[in-house]
Amino acid sequence: MKGIWLENQQLQIRTDIEIPEIPPGEALVRVLRAGICNTDLELLKGYYPYTGILGHEFVGVVEQGPADLINQRVVGEINAVCGDCWFCRQEKSTHCENRTVLGIVNRYGAFAEYLRLPIKNLHRLPDNISHDAATFTEPLAAALQIQQQIHFSNNHRVLVVGDGKLGQLVAQTIALTGCDLLVIGRHRDKLANLEDRGIKTGFANSVTDRAFDIAVECTGNPEGFAIAHRALRPRGTIVLKSTYAGKLNLDASALVVDEITLIGSRCGPFLPAIELLSTGKVNVEPLIQKRFPIDQGIEAFATAQTRGSLKIILEIG
Amino acid sequence: MKGIWLENQQLQIRTDIEIPEIPPGEALVRVLRAGICNTDLELLKGYYPYTGILGHEFVGVVEQGPADLINQRVVGEINAVCGDCWFCRQEKSTHCENRTVLGIVNRYGAFAEYLRLPIKNLHRLPDNISHDAATFTEPLAAALQIQQQIHFSNNHRVLVVGDGKLGQLVAQTIALTGCDLLVIGRHRDKLANLEDRGIKTGFANSVTDRAFDIAVECTGNPEGFAIAHRALRPRGTIVLKSTYAGKLNLDASALVVDEITLIGSRCGPFLPAIELLSTGKVNVEPLIQKRFPIDQGIEAFATAQTRGSLKIILEIG
Repeated sequence: MKGIWLENQQLQIRTDIEIPEIPPGEALVRVLRAGICNTDLELLKGYYPYTGILGHEFVGVVEQGPADLINQRVVGEINAVCGDCWFCRQEKSTHCENRTVLGIVNRYGAFAEYLRLPIKNLHRLPDNISHDAATFTEPLAAALQIQQQIHFSNNHRVLVVGDGKLGQLVAQTIALTGCDLLVIGRHRDKLANLEDRGIKTGFANSVTDRAFDIAVECTGNPEGFAIAHRALRPRGTIVLKSTYAGKLNLDASALVVDEITLIGSRCGPFLPAIELLSTGKVNVEPLIQKRFPIDQGIEAFATAQTRGSLKIILEIG
Repeated sequence: MKGIWLENQQLQIRTDIEIPEIPPGEALVRVLRAGICNTDLELLKGYYPYTGILGHEFVGVVEQGPADLINQRVVGEINAVCGDCWFCRQEKSTHCENRTVLGIVNRYGAFAEYLRLPIKNLHRLPDNISHDAATFTEPLAAALQIQQQIHFSNNHRVLVVGDGKLGQLVAQTIALTGCDLLVIGRHRDKLANLEDRGIKTGFANSVTDRAFDIAVECTGNPEGFAIAHRALRPRGTIVLKSTYAGKLNLDASALVVDEITLIGSRCGPFLPAIELLSTGKVNVEPLIQKRFPIDQGIEAFATAQTRGSLKIILEIG
């Protein structure tokens, strides 16, 4: 089958990859579309070791698996877990000690004609979610993870730093909590997407006082972190939603004196993400930059790497 | 009056300082003893700007103030607060926007014959707490602050990193929660103090797996932080209890992937600290390195700056 293959920080479109064999408990999914995520770009830069098919944001159709899933359109949770370790038993299975992760850790990914995943990872989709929108299920679930970790209330002042594809999903989900939200970014057009949904936005200079209870850092760069930190009240919380290339230089004494909480946030729940897409409470269409057929995967990655690029979608099946 | 004065990173014993005049709502306290804290050493190194009398850990006797406090032995909370700002109204008054802090921010400290503090900051002491032990009330309250921020349960595995004076107070208070505690340090004799109280201890190499739910960093150096981070389970919590000289270099991506929480912790509640000292549930005697009369304040600071020094107590009145 055809797939986008990463090896030694080089991408190639291969056509000689074997269709995966399906072990018990797993299903074979024919991939329809897939989205390129910043994590894919970081894997390409070699920040984490990985060789094989990239990709973890996808929508597809089940070709082998249980009867009730055959020919059904699905999305899939990316962590394939053992169900047996301490984390799985504590219902923290996204941290399973023995996990493989689709297109990230020891499991071939979604930028190919077929992938395999455990049956329990798959979720059927309502018909009213388009293929394109469905590819946003995984990052939207990751955005919703913040609300699993922190309670948002009406009187919380919340700052989202970053107007990129992750920041926009985070902003739209947090706006639904009814808190007092401000999103800051660098791109007037991207901020306009959010303004259109009634979300307050601004540039970095619109944060003038240390008055926010919660700041969500979605830029993945130290400058974004510094803005988030400066904006926080004492006893405030910074959510780190982006992985960072390299190290972050932190004023630890300021964290101590102001009793700041910093919390890392990763994968989240799929069912509420599907619900938000189905009801249209989150709108992902403006987040799509461009679509490429998988044969043009190299060009697709080049576009995704362009500064300020929004979501690049690969058309696969 | 006599006092230890800091100016331009130089200490001097002055004898010409005026006894403070007492504004309404405050009391005049004759200082009996005071303890040198790492924060005093950091102020001396110039990490924060401060000119005046150092010192914030003390026990004294009220000489001017309300009738029921006159001639009573007291300790005092160090943040003098406005009672009116957002933080004070939210019962987060240690973060008062208009606060002065004894011997740290815009208020002369305790290394002098007299100090002044708001009456509401003062707490009378039971007779069974010695003068020396009473000087530990403030750092002991700071240790207890961790339990105001995080819940400890019997099945939590908790690591305290650091066997210095702060680490020892933190360890003793956390041990009382009944959790599964390990304290790591570098000094066999200091760890032995804790072993004597039934607390498990070891050197850094005794942490071999990422199995701790909570790690409390009490060393104030990046190496201690790295040990705390390495020891944590995914979804674990690191408490930063020490201020740090300079910046901390953090692997932010690891915080995100493992969804680690990092929380800064500062001043804590005095009443439970007094209770622990009075009931003997915490033993501070082994934490006293040496006592100096205030006239030998310069030598006292030199000893406090010696690597591995425990608590230095100044005998003032």
